[in-house]
Amino acid sequence: MQDPATALTLPDPLPLDSGAELSPVTIAYQQYGALSPGRDNVVLICHALTGDQYVASPHPGTGKPGWWDRMVGPGRPIDTNRFHVICTNVIGGCMGSTGPASESGDGKPYGPRFPVVTIHDMARGIARLLDALGIERLHAVVGGSMGGMQAMAFASDFPDRVERVLVLASAARQSAQNIAFHEVGRQAIMADANWNGGDYYGGAHPDAGLAVARMAAHITYLSEAGLTEKFGRQLQARPDGSEGTKSFGFEADFQVESYLRYQGSGFTRRFDANSYLYITRAIDYFDLAEKHGGRLADAFANTTARFCVVSFDTDWLYTTAESQHLVRALNAAGAPVSFVELSSPFGHDGFLLETPGLDEVVQGFVG
Amino acid sequence: MQDPATALTLPDPLPLDSGAELSPVTIAYQQYGALSPGRDNVVLICHALTGDQYVASPHPGTGKPGWWDRMVGPGRPIDTNRFHVICTNVIGGCMGSTGPASESGDGKPYGPRFPVVTIHDMARGIARLLDALGIERLHAVVGGSMGGMQAMAFASDFPDRVERVLVLASAARQSAQNIAFHEVGRQAIMADANWNGGDYYGGAHPDAGLAVARMAAHITYLSEAGLTEKFGRQLQARPDGSEGTKSFGFEADFQVESYLRYQGSGFTRRFDANSYLYITRAIDYFDLAEKHGGRLADAFANTTARFCVVSFDTDWLYTTAESQHLVRALNAAGAPVSFVELSSPFGHDGFLLETPGLDEVVQGFVG
Repeated sequence: MQDPATALTLPDPLPLDSGAELSPVTIAYQQYGALSPGRDNVVLICHALTGDQYVASPHPGTGKPGWWDRMVGPGRPIDTNRFHVICTNVIGGCMGSTGPASESGDGKPYGPRFPVVTIHDMARGIARLLDALGIERLHAVVGGSMGGMQAMAFASDFPDRVERVLVLASAARQSAQNIAFHEVGRQAIMADANWNGGDYYGGAHPDAGLAVARMAAHITYLSEAGLTEKFGRQLQARPDGSEGTKSFGFEADFQVESYLRYQGSGFTRRFDANSYLYITRAIDYFDLAEKHGGRLADAFANTTARFCVVSFDTDWLYTTAESQHLVRALNAAGAPVSFVELSSPFGHDGFLLETPGLDEVVQGFVG
Repeated sequence: MQDPATALTLPDPLPLDSGAELSPVTIAYQQYGALSPGRDNVVLICHALTGDQYVASPHPGTGKPGWWDRMVGPGRPIDTNRFHVICTNVIGGCMGSTGPASESGDGKPYGPRFPVVTIHDMARGIARLLDALGIERLHAVVGGSMGGMQAMAFASDFPDRVERVLVLASAARQSAQNIAFHEVGRQAIMADANWNGGDYYGGAHPDAGLAVARMAAHITYLSEAGLTEKFGRQLQARPDGSEGTKSFGFEADFQVESYLRYQGSGFTRRFDANSYLYITRAIDYFDLAEKHGGRLADAFANTTARFCVVSFDTDWLYTTAESQHLVRALNAAGAPVSFVELSSPFGHDGFLLETPGLDEVVQGFVG
């Protein structure tokens, strides 16, 4: 049961891009900082593929700090002494918002009967949540990676409802290579004998497949140079603490193997495999220009917002070139936009970590 | 039963880097072109991870042309009117050389009891094969990717036995990122319920896991730009030929998804999952400097060969930087070496495809 203070069930069914409707729709969210009397200090933060609404407070499952704790809080770049921060769990997710593990009308989990949702559907859900909360217009919407896609979709679909749009390490469309990596992850999940066509909630979950999916994705979040610097070809110390040697077997001899296995298995304890399928699908379907005859600039034709686009030089998942493609479209649309490429060794994860200049850019823009 | 004309069982057990011995050892190979009376016109070609000995003749399983048919043959850059070409299947492989699917002493397949072999073990096996064939010295050894690793190991371990070493799209050590991608593939295979700890030869094979491994690896063989140019976000035409639309499901909507699935499933029909585990392990263990106190130049201290190193500008698996690292070591060792970076849209696969300048470089160097 979701804490009613941090989840809201929308009063109406939510129409989806597929033509289907989702009902009921619960959206789980977290709030930080006081809402101003004029309700005009709201900063909406949208999470990435495997993120959640716990942006600045401990994850209830793992107990780990919020995923952007260093960015959001009192006196932080997104200052909760000034702003009322809302972070929503996406539709299709598994942290309280309606998703494939939720009960459908017949009292059983949706499983594979859950409808495929899009980034635009997620944005529409957010708009309905804001309606219900009595928030007409956002001071800012902020997101990295898939969070940036939601921010762009929200600004495009609800152009009067946001003043500032901050997009980090993202793209206005998913590339062929990124679709390919997602498809590997999906196939890994579907190859797991426990997946059972998506109907697994009564039994063992497809954790082995989900772990493989996470491992493959995790490599794409890091940079080659970062991996070399952090792990190189170093061998894992033995359980007794002695220096690592090659096992001439299939143990995790190399530190990078051990690290990846840890990432994979840890992920399965906090994420639902079906949510992974649905959310990667939503990302792959994302092409903001599509509803506008392929002209990305037209997606921003009616916007009144200012934009800030941030890329990271070692990010090969959502490259600087993709950010520049977005910036050119915003320029063509006549929207005020600033762009910065930050230098970081962390690859795509640069937006989550201590990248020089990042705090200043975020604080300066959200302001 | 392997055709005795194209496989040879070594007279002695083969000592392995692990300390184990492999016995008996059969090495399957193909030959093209006549051996000169002086036995001095032999070009040895070493295959990559998923390659085989059918370099210039149809694969007996798939019927497809040899994997380097365009490079090897009468009048081709490696001219079988002049050279006697030998291509061996690696130990640990599944095309006739002794590997995990081979019968062990008790008449049952090795499965997981097969010893972990290294690139140096493969080179040692090749040297023993050449002994048995009465070939003392090679005109050239040629290899791309893992084939290049075998070529380097052969030149380093048997410095008097080769005159020319041609290394394409390879590296003197496996990087952390590449180990990571291999580990994803191994975990995908081991996660398959049919893998059964490697003892699966009497039943269903872990094809789903092997397909996922292949899909993940295949992405690393291509370039991001090549994938975008070839597939972009194009949707797959429907079976009835009509234009593709989003299924709002988990079909292969995008052409790149369909392509990857095809690559994955096709691979399982010609490759053994355990061989994939063992050969990726051999590659991950490869660090030519390791036996020489970490000084790569010392690996070539006694060589009498000339070297040619070729990289491909869009290859992000074995980068130009790694080739340059090798070239610097050869320079430091005083070995004659030429280096060229070729421009190709094909990523790592550039060495297998029609890359401008490649034929000229190979023909010019092999002579």
